[in-house]
Amino acid sequence: MIGVLESVRESISKNQDDIISDLRKLVKHPSISAQNIGIEECAAALNDVMRDSGMTSNIIKLPDGNPIVYGEVKSSSKKTLLLYSHYDVQPVEPLDEWKYNPFSGVVADNKVHGRGAADSKGNVIALIKAAKAFLDTVGEPPVNLKFLIEGEEEISSVNLPDFVKKNKQMLKANASLCFDSSLNPAGMASIYAGLKGLLYLELRCKTAGIDMHSGLAPIIPNPAWRLVSALNSIKNDGRITVDGWYDSVNVPTKEDLALLQDLGYDEKMIKKEYGVKELIGNVTGKEALKKLLFEPTCNIAGIQSGYTSAGSKTVLPNEAFVKLDFRLVYDQNTDDLIKKLRSHLAKRGYTDMTIYKLGAEEPSKTDVNAKIVKAASVAAEKVYKKKPAIFPNMWGSGPDFVFTKILKLESVWTGCSPSYANIHAPNEFTTIKNVLDGVSYASMIIQEFANT
Amino acid sequence: MIGVLESVRESISKNQDDIISDLRKLVKHPSISAQNIGIEECAAALNDVMRDSGMTSNIIKLPDGNPIVYGEVKSSSKKTLLLYSHYDVQPVEPLDEWKYNPFSGVVADNKVHGRGAADSKGNVIALIKAAKAFLDTVGEPPVNLKFLIEGEEEISSVNLPDFVKKNKQMLKANASLCFDSSLNPAGMASIYAGLKGLLYLELRCKTAGIDMHSGLAPIIPNPAWRLVSALNSIKNDGRITVDGWYDSVNVPTKEDLALLQDLGYDEKMIKKEYGVKELIGNVTGKEALKKLLFEPTCNIAGIQSGYTSAGSKTVLPNEAFVKLDFRLVYDQNTDDLIKKLRSHLAKRGYTDMTIYKLGAEEPSKTDVNAKIVKAASVAAEKVYKKKPAIFPNMWGSGPDFVFTKILKLESVWTGCSPSYANIHAPNEFTTIKNVLDGVSYASMIIQEFANT
Repeated sequence: MIGVLESVRESISKNQDDIISDLRKLVKHPSISAQNIGIEECAAALNDVMRDSGMTSNIIKLPDGNPIVYGEVKSSSKKTLLLYSHYDVQPVEPLDEWKYNPFSGVVADNKVHGRGAADSKGNVIALIKAAKAFLDTVGEPPVNLKFLIEGEEEISSVNLPDFVKKNKQMLKANASLCFDSSLNPAGMASIYAGLKGLLYLELRCKTAGIDMHSGLAPIIPNPAWRLVSALNSIKNDGRITVDGWYDSVNVPTKEDLALLQDLGYDEKMIKKEYGVKELIGNVTGKEALKKLLFEPTCNIAGIQSGYTSAGSKTVLPNEAFVKLDFRLVYDQNTDDLIKKLRSHLAKRGYTDMTIYKLGAEEPSKTDVNAKIVKAASVAAEKVYKKKPAIFPNMWGSGPDFVFTKILKLESVWTGCSPSYANIHAPNEFTTIKNVLDGVSYASMIIQEFANT
Repeated sequence: MIGVLESVRESISKNQDDIISDLRKLVKHPSISAQNIGIEECAAALNDVMRDSGMTSNIIKLPDGNPIVYGEVKSSSKKTLLLYSHYDVQPVEPLDEWKYNPFSGVVADNKVHGRGAADSKGNVIALIKAAKAFLDTVGEPPVNLKFLIEGEEEISSVNLPDFVKKNKQMLKANASLCFDSSLNPAGMASIYAGLKGLLYLELRCKTAGIDMHSGLAPIIPNPAWRLVSALNSIKNDGRITVDGWYDSVNVPTKEDLALLQDLGYDEKMIKKEYGVKELIGNVTGKEALKKLLFEPTCNIAGIQSGYTSAGSKTVLPNEAFVKLDFRLVYDQNTDDLIKKLRSHLAKRGYTDMTIYKLGAEEPSKTDVNAKIVKAASVAAEKVYKKKPAIFPNMWGSGPDFVFTKILKLESVWTGCSPSYANIHAPNEFTTIKNVLDGVSYASMIIQEFANT
C-alpha cells in the first residue's frame, strides 16, 4: 500500500508541470452552462486532456443539453468504479470584482486563478491524473474506471438523470466516487454520505405590456409588489410557510446526529471570510452545522424589476421576476414540492405568477458504513495525514441521486479544492498543492476501493 | 381678443418649420438628469433657442446641480407671470424597446419622436414660441414674462427649492404658469390646481462583503429576503402601514370632491393602452380618478439583488436595494415622512437597511378660483374649442410647492402634450399639431391673465 502511494506521488511530482498546464487549459475555457458560453470548446479540450492522459474518451452529445465527456480505463480487476465530476462553471458576474480575468488561468502565489479552478476543474484534473498515475507506474488501475464528466452541474444537471436512465448498462459499476468538493478549513478531507437536493425556480409576474409612469400606482398593479407579497407568503421568519413543505423531511436520523458529534464548525471563520456581522439566530458550532446540513432553504438568488441604474426614475414596472433556489433534504421530492408551491400560490390568489422550473435535483443518501465511504476515509487519512471529516449530508447539492436512486449504487462525495476558494463568487482559485494532493487522494481512494 | 388669437395663430403658422426644428434641436440632446448625461449641452442649446426667439436669457449654474436657464421678456404692463418648465428627461432604458433612436428627433407620421418630446421639451417650446408670437405680432407680451426652465424636474427638482429661496426678488411675479403636462384623451386641456408630492428613497441592505454559495443560506442572512420582509412591513394590501403615514392627509376637501363630479375617467382606455388586465380593486370611472388624485402611494420603481441574467446561479447575494417612490398628498411633509419611515423600520429591527433620499417634493395646492386658474380655463376653451378638465389635484408630481409655499404665488399646471405619449417609457413622442396648438394655448393664457 505504501508502495502505491509513494510511486503515485513520484509520478505526480515528475508530471507536475503537465498537470497544472492541463488544469489551466480547462480554466481558460469559460464553459458557463447558465449562459451557454464556451461549452462545446471546453468539452473538446477536456476530451483531449483525457485522451492524452491515456484513456479512451468520447464526447457524447445530448439532444437538448450540454455534451457529456465519457472515458474509460480498463483494469484486469472485476470491480468497476464510476467517477463523476463536471466541467461547467458558474457565471462570473459581477465582473468588476475580479482581480484577474476569470478565464486567464493566471498562476500567481502558487495558485491557479479563475472561474472553475476550484469548482470543479481542479477536481476533474485530479481524477484524470490519478488514472494516468496508475497507467504510468503500475500499468493499469486496480479497478476498472468509468469517467462521467458532465457539463450541466451548475444548472442542476438538467439532462443527467435522463442520460443515466438510458445508459444503465454502460454506467454499470460497483460504486460511485463523485469528486466535486473541498477540504475543510483545517486541511482535512471532507467526505459526504449524502447531498441536499435542489429545486431552482423562476417566478415571473407580468402585469402590463410596457413600463408606465408611477403616478398610475393608485390603480395599476405593480408586479414587484405582487412578487414581494407572494414571496412573503412563502417564507416567514426563516421558515418556509408553503403548506406541507416539511412533510417528507426524514433527517437528521439518530445516526446522522451521532456523526455530527465528531464534527466541528467554526462559525467565526465563515463570518470573517465573508464579512458577515451576524449569522441567522446567532448560531455557533454544531448548531450552525446542523442547520447547514439538515435545514431545507428557500434562497433568493436573484430578484429584479423596474429601474435599477443610478439615480431615480419614477416608473411603474410591467414585469418582475425572482430566482429562487430551494435546498432540499432527504427525502423531499421536487415534483411534489412544485405541486405544493403552485397550490399554495393559487390558494392565496397569486394566479398572476408564472413558475418556470430551471433545475431539479433530488436529495440523496448513502449508508456511512458503505465500502466506498470507508475507502475514501482511509485514503484521506493516508494522503492528508489527518482523519477526514465525515458528513452525514452536504450543505450543497449535486446529482448524487442519479447514482443512488437511478443506478442504485453506494456513492460518496469528496474533493480536493481549498476551503474558501470563492466558488460561485468573484476571484475563485485553487492552489497548486491542492491539485497535486488531489491526484494522490483520488489515486488512493481507487486503490482502497480495490482493496475492499 | 379674437384678434390676438388670430394674429398669434397666423404667426405660428408662418413659423411652423422653425418651431418644430427648434423642438427637434432640444430632443436631440439627451439631458438625462438621473444619469447626468448631456445636461450642459442641452442647457446651452435651450439658451440659444430662447435668445434666438427674442428674449434675454442666461444659463445660471448651480453649485451642486444642473443649470437653470432663466429668461425674461419685458412688457409695458405692471403684471408679471412666472413661466415654469424643465429641459431634463427620464432615462431611456430599456433601450431595445424603442422603435427610433430616443435622441434622433425623427419626424414621422406628423409626430416628433424621442425622449422628452412630450415630457417636456414640447411644452418648453410652446412657452418660448408664445412669447415670440407676441414679439412678432404685437411687439411685446401683455404681461412681463419670466422663464424658469430647470434641469432637474425628473430627479425631483433637487436644487430648485434652494434656488428659489435665494432668488425671491428676481422671481417676483403675480402668479405662476407651469407648462408640463398633457391634454386629456378627448383632446381637452387639463388644468391642475394642485400637485402630489414625491419622496424618492433608495433602501439598501448589505449583509456581507461578497456574494456567497447559496448552500450557506441556513445560517447567513440574505439581504434580498431582508428587503422583502421590510417592504412587506411598509405596505400591506394596498395600504401604507408605516405608523402615522396618513396623519397629515387633508384632501380631498368638499370642494375637491365637487370638482370631481365634473370629471370623467375612462379606465377601459388606460387598460387597453398599457395592456393591463385588471385595475387594483377593479375601480372604474370617478372612483379610479379619486384614487389617482388623492391616494398616497408607495411604488416599487426598481428592485435588484443577486443573479439576474439568464438561467440559474445558486448565489447568496451580499447586497440588495429597492427604489421606492412615494407620491404624497396635501399636506404631507417629506421630512416628517422620512422620520416616520426610519422609526418604523428601526422599531421592527430593520437596522440593517440604509435609507438614501434621492428626491423630495412637497405636495401643493392652489384655490381653483384663482385668477391664473381662470385664465388657463378661458384660454383652453378658446384654443381647443372644448371646456377644459379642471382637476383639484394632479396624479403626478412636480415642484409646484416652490411657487405656492416659497414664493406664495397662486399657481396652475397645464400643458400641450398628447395623452398616452409614452412619457417615462419607451417610444415617447409628441405630435406637430399638439406643439403648434400648445403655442396658441400658452399665448392665450398669457393674454387672459393680462385681462384679469
